[in-house]
Amino acid sequence: MARILITSGPTRQYLDPVRYLTNASSGRMGAGLAAAALELGHEVMVVSGPVDVRYPDGCRVVPVVSTEEMLEAARHEFDQADGLIGAAAPCDYRPKLVAEQKIAKTGEPLELRLVETEDVVATLAADKGRRWVVGFALETEDHRLRALAKLERKHCDLMVSNGAEAMHAHTNDVEVLTPDGQTLGQFAGPKADVARGILGVIQDRLIDA
Amino acid sequence: MARILITSGPTRQYLDPVRYLTNASSGRMGAGLAAAALELGHEVMVVSGPVDVRYPDGCRVVPVVSTEEMLEAARHEFDQADGLIGAAAPCDYRPKLVAEQKIAKTGEPLELRLVETEDVVATLAADKGRRWVVGFALETEDHRLRALAKLERKHCDLMVSNGAEAMHAHTNDVEVLTPDGQTLGQFAGPKADVARGILGVIQDRLIDA
Repeated sequence: MARILITSGPTRQYLDPVRYLTNASSGRMGAGLAAAALELGHEVMVVSGPVDVRYPDGCRVVPVVSTEEMLEAARHEFDQADGLIGAAAPCDYRPKLVAEQKIAKTGEPLELRLVETEDVVATLAADKGRRWVVGFALETEDHRLRALAKLERKHCDLMVSNGAEAMHAHTNDVEVLTPDGQTLGQFAGPKADVARGILGVIQDRLIDA
Repeated sequence: MARILITSGPTRQYLDPVRYLTNASSGRMGAGLAAAALELGHEVMVVSGPVDVRYPDGCRVVPVVSTEEMLEAARHEFDQADGLIGAAAPCDYRPKLVAEQKIAKTGEPLELRLVETEDVVATLAADKGRRWVVGFALETEDHRLRALAKLERKHCDLMVSNGAEAMHAHTNDVEVLTPDGQTLGQFAGPKADVARGILGVIQDRLIDA
């Protein structure tokens, strides 16, 4: 039995009290991974951005809104975990300035300076010690190449590569890549089944190994 | 029996194929208004951005994503309507440039130039003729004053004023304002009940009048 931390869903980075930057991540992949991990008898903690998906009974869910909150909550949970699956799509840019009141329209363009948020998976993996880390890479071009570059940069043990069509879809099509560029699995179909495939690879390669 | 067009929910303005600007509008107020209008025997068309809420059976729903799409669909539906209730929270800024591929992080700030989208309610009301238009104003300060300014600028017959705490909530607290600054109704509580209150005012003032 392993204690597995899963990050899931999108995050939001507010410009003002009303408007924010985000993406269409639904949390379905994270919910599928949680269910698959529970099926294998593991203990599951989920740190999730705002989603409408229901996580399975039997896992503990910590809700967050921003990437900063996701990092803080995940850092805390990772202390107790054996491994991390970073299935969330945290917003990776935030406005440098956040307005306290709703920005009123003036008829003029609005210049927004965005700065990068801290990378949740890279930050936790940098200090992982004996714990394992599985990342997700969502790319619209050169999926494999970019996924492998991310795997290395973020110190992951495995990287799940998928395309933007995964966003808010009920199905997914992924490759599970190793640091030396091997493909350990390729899974396509409903997210619940794809999640079982990914968990199977994690079980063989990182938990039972 | 009136034919009522309701706009509902948020819209999204994409920066690239993954990231977008939006707000937390849930579509619940729009769904409540649709139900209340159906209860009064009206015909209801809803133009809705991406939401998880279910609109009542008996109304026709046109799904859209961006503000441009909402305006186009609403303009088309407004041709057949007796009145418009603009309960949507369309994204009112869009990136001037939209990247075809996911923008890769570089470690540097990202300068985003936002330009205003066309105002859906103002655009339709400018050419309303004998049709009536009810707008919604969501403000974080000076609610009443700003709502009345919007009423005038957008050529609305009534303006519903609410605060940012309405966003994604199950309850709301609104005032219904006339062009001469009268408050015709003030409703607080579950959105379904608030919607019935608003529809009652519309019925008395704009449909039966």
